[in-house]
Amino acid sequence: MTEKIKRTERRVALTKILTSRPSQLFSLSYFSTLFEAAKSTLSEDMEAIGQSLEQFGLGKLETVAGASGGVRYLPCRSMDSMGSLLTELSEKMSTSDRIITGGFLYMSDILYDAHRMARVGEIFMTLFAHTSPDVVMTVETKGIPLAMMTARAFNIPLVIVRRGSKVTEGPAVSINYVTGSSKRIQTMSLPKRALASGAKALIIDDFMKAGGTARGMIDLAREVGAEVVGTGVLVATSEPEHKLVDDYVTLLILSEVDEQTKKVVITPKMPI
Amino acid sequence: MTEKIKRTERRVALTKILTSRPSQLFSLSYFSTLFEAAKSTLSEDMEAIGQSLEQFGLGKLETVAGASGGVRYLPCRSMDSMGSLLTELSEKMSTSDRIITGGFLYMSDILYDAHRMARVGEIFMTLFAHTSPDVVMTVETKGIPLAMMTARAFNIPLVIVRRGSKVTEGPAVSINYVTGSSKRIQTMSLPKRALASGAKALIIDDFMKAGGTARGMIDLAREVGAEVVGTGVLVATSEPEHKLVDDYVTLLILSEVDEQTKKVVITPKMPI
Repeated sequence: MTEKIKRTERRVALTKILTSRPSQLFSLSYFSTLFEAAKSTLSEDMEAIGQSLEQFGLGKLETVAGASGGVRYLPCRSMDSMGSLLTELSEKMSTSDRIITGGFLYMSDILYDAHRMARVGEIFMTLFAHTSPDVVMTVETKGIPLAMMTARAFNIPLVIVRRGSKVTEGPAVSINYVTGSSKRIQTMSLPKRALASGAKALIIDDFMKAGGTARGMIDLAREVGAEVVGTGVLVATSEPEHKLVDDYVTLLILSEVDEQTKKVVITPKMPI
Repeated sequence: MTEKIKRTERRVALTKILTSRPSQLFSLSYFSTLFEAAKSTLSEDMEAIGQSLEQFGLGKLETVAGASGGVRYLPCRSMDSMGSLLTELSEKMSTSDRIITGGFLYMSDILYDAHRMARVGEIFMTLFAHTSPDVVMTVETKGIPLAMMTARAFNIPLVIVRRGSKVTEGPAVSINYVTGSSKRIQTMSLPKRALASGAKALIIDDFMKAGGTARGMIDLAREVGAEVVGTGVLVATSEPEHKLVDDYVTLLILSEVDEQTKKVVITPKMPI
């Protein structure tokens, strides 16, 4: 009986430790010391935990073989669960009280909701896993929580590009870019030590209209010798159809904000 | 045997669901439907999961009685675990290669590390739980990941104050404030709909020198009729000793950055 209680206790603790650090590889030796359990026992635990997580659509465990191997939790989302999350978000965003003078849409309450952004970050991890990014890159301000949660899902650093040319982060690289909406020339900058030459960067942002900001980030990454392996945004406008970036993934499409009729049309982009 | 396997599967899934939404109250009815299990069975599960989490210092479960009751996961941290995290952070921050011309310290890699900020956010939740905040409030940019993770631990919304007076978030309240370091007058603003009158706000930021920014946020909160119930920062400088806010909690103290001798002194504030 004692043995069985121990097994449950161990599996509960293992589940918590693994799932609270997505994509982090843990060696069986680490758990072996922590729980005073044989590796064969822990392998059985991982098998059981993995099955249970998959059964309830809560992600999966991945085993990496070899001396430097171990096990990690991947917060993958199924097509079904992505679809229902995006439907929920689009419905929440499509209410007329969100319309702001000037044809803008108030979305900060959603963009700053940690749990929702964690789930959207898991969608981006699922969609961009094949690109194996080294860092997530975004520009201040509204996209930061989403980019942070995407970086968390991948277990990689976040890089935040600053607007303007702030200098309290040491030597920086700056570029000028044209905002798609107002056609103004602006500056964005990145501390040199934040992004290594040769790094593979995944750009994540909350919103894309003409794509000028994303274009600026791609240019900035190129400037330091990094490579952009993907661009993901939560919402993109349907117009202009041709953006300043060729290749991007959007989860939602905003096709109408009418101040007169108080109409907002925002729909999931499915299949993604 | 089948029954026992089911029990483990259920407890693994319950652990994942509860711990990935800190402070969120789940009703037993919700789990009863999800797992087709009796509430008495689920109560036993919660007992076992709670014990296991506490045994390994992974937080605890709290049961709320009554019709609208249920169970929630609280990511509380022990004094020991807080101490070791703060020691780790202070050592990582005290390296001479972090010194930037002008006497600044490069900390963005740490401030934008999702896992570290999640753990610091749990410290703030533990320290400020008694203040029962309704929202976490911060100002752009570097404190956003930490504030977001604190909001996640509390399961409450995040409010981000903007520097300057951006107008794409609707009617806003603005105030002027004096930055402690450069003594310049700056503006910060908050969309009116982001913070309700009467709300209890917890201010979280990465850094405090003279306290001008925190003072500004307190004034801004007062302007919309909200109440600031606490102020927490990751790092505060030892000088000036008297800050523009009376009451704040800092986790680390920065007492020296010497460009000449390349010396950085930063230490945990213990007991917190």
